[in-house]
Amino acid sequence: MSVTTSATIASFGGKLLKLAHNASTTGCEMKFNLYLPPQSTSSKVPLLIWLSGLTCTADNCSEKGFFQHGASKRGIAVLYPDTSPRGVGIEGEDESYDFGSGAGFYVDATADPWSKNYKMYSYVTEELPKVVFSNFDQIDSSRVSITGHSMGGHGALSLYLKNPGKYKSVSAFAPISNPLKAPWGEKAFKGYFGEKDWQSKGADHDATELIKKWKGGPLDILIDVQSQLLPENLVAAAKEAGQEKGVNVRFQPDYDHSYFTMASFADDHVDHAAKYLFA
Amino acid sequence: MSVTTSATIASFGGKLLKLAHNASTTGCEMKFNLYLPPQSTSSKVPLLIWLSGLTCTADNCSEKGFFQHGASKRGIAVLYPDTSPRGVGIEGEDESYDFGSGAGFYVDATADPWSKNYKMYSYVTEELPKVVFSNFDQIDSSRVSITGHSMGGHGALSLYLKNPGKYKSVSAFAPISNPLKAPWGEKAFKGYFGEKDWQSKGADHDATELIKKWKGGPLDILIDVQSQLLPENLVAAAKEAGQEKGVNVRFQPDYDHSYFTMASFADDHVDHAAKYLFA
Repeated sequence: MSVTTSATIASFGGKLLKLAHNASTTGCEMKFNLYLPPQSTSSKVPLLIWLSGLTCTADNCSEKGFFQHGASKRGIAVLYPDTSPRGVGIEGEDESYDFGSGAGFYVDATADPWSKNYKMYSYVTEELPKVVFSNFDQIDSSRVSITGHSMGGHGALSLYLKNPGKYKSVSAFAPISNPLKAPWGEKAFKGYFGEKDWQSKGADHDATELIKKWKGGPLDILIDVQSQLLPENLVAAAKEAGQEKGVNVRFQPDYDHSYFTMASFADDHVDHAAKYLFA
Repeated sequence: MSVTTSATIASFGGKLLKLAHNASTTGCEMKFNLYLPPQSTSSKVPLLIWLSGLTCTADNCSEKGFFQHGASKRGIAVLYPDTSPRGVGIEGEDESYDFGSGAGFYVDATADPWSKNYKMYSYVTEELPKVVFSNFDQIDSSRVSITGHSMGGHGALSLYLKNPGKYKSVSAFAPISNPLKAPWGEKAFKGYFGEKDWQSKGADHDATELIKKWKGGPLDILIDVQSQLLPENLVAAAKEAGQEKGVNVRFQPDYDHSYFTMASFADDHVDHAAKYLFA
């Protein structure tokens, strides 16, 4: 469970670490970034996991999302995982921007040839947090929240809804909230689960389906959306499940799908997580 | 004086415009970015000019510098010029990271073959502001401040000190504050002014030399430094000129020369400008 550090960068009074480790779930070296806020030098701090969207590495949000601004004020560590295995030698792994490398979709693939390495669900929910907690004892493993953008918004919502109690809170930017009904989700699920099983297996990773079966108590999900990634299906499903007050969708019509949007609202999402991480 | 707009991006409640125009001083198309804060839709706003360092375009600080955060709160427009002419066909113009394209050094070159296009001093002090004011009447041309990083910190300090009254305030991150004594400055001045004249002409663009001759009243310069770019010479020169209280150098030893540093202290520099822009 050892990690190597390639850079230690001062940021908003804390430190952004560029790290890597050999992951057993994905069978390759995985890079990730970890922001330690200034408060972590004197006390345990909770953790906010950021899941990025298609094509991203751990660096995009670290550089342009400005989560460190709010995290440094509130005393929250931020974990930036990569979005897929890299360089595992599968034919065509780097050919599409929306499938394969940079597009792991936070599922454990079951279809060949992806099933050996593309285990991003297990990696993000189990292996990576264990690596972080065992190497950084200033982080409180009992207080973890999750957020993300686009494909990573799908990841944040689906990981939260599949694991009641695992995360203290969830929020998302422009999440693919009903991947079974979205072209990006359909392509990914067909590829990672196979043509036969994609709908049944995909339903277990679709926030709109998962929210209907949620038994974890009152929800409080913050979502900022700009484009139409089917949040209305999620909202309708939440209503069906008696959770209509649990999904706060804020339409930000002027904003686009870029990190300028995350930067503009990052503080709100950190504050949303802080409400539960410090409850 | 017409400008073309290639993108309009929502950012912190305002708009970041990606713009271009045909510049007569540099004889080529120049790209630049302009941030209009939310307040600009209802009233005139002052302008903060950001001058970038070596290798940068208008985009680096727009994406990673976090100036829009403070500017949106204070109601200040931010102008991000490019750092040199581009594609003007001079042999070797793109060969060095610290000379030629991306490295205009905010001087008007007098040596061939650079003297025709490399007029970044005139471009930034005269032509570009005129273009901005004539196209965006929500910006108050009488209230302009300036700041920058590294080569752009040199630009901010030297433009301010050469033009008493032109800018309401100045600040800088890790400025090349004594370019005559710094390898980057020496290379640039020799190239743009020629081997014979570089010291005499360079002195007129060297903040440490200029501050000795300053007649513009009490100074209040904010400088954040991480590496040794000779701020001690500037401080000594300021003392010699009876302006020792006018240069506030803050050493930030943990920080590096990257935009993570600007992001961490951008709000302080916006606040510094705001003190004078709203005086």
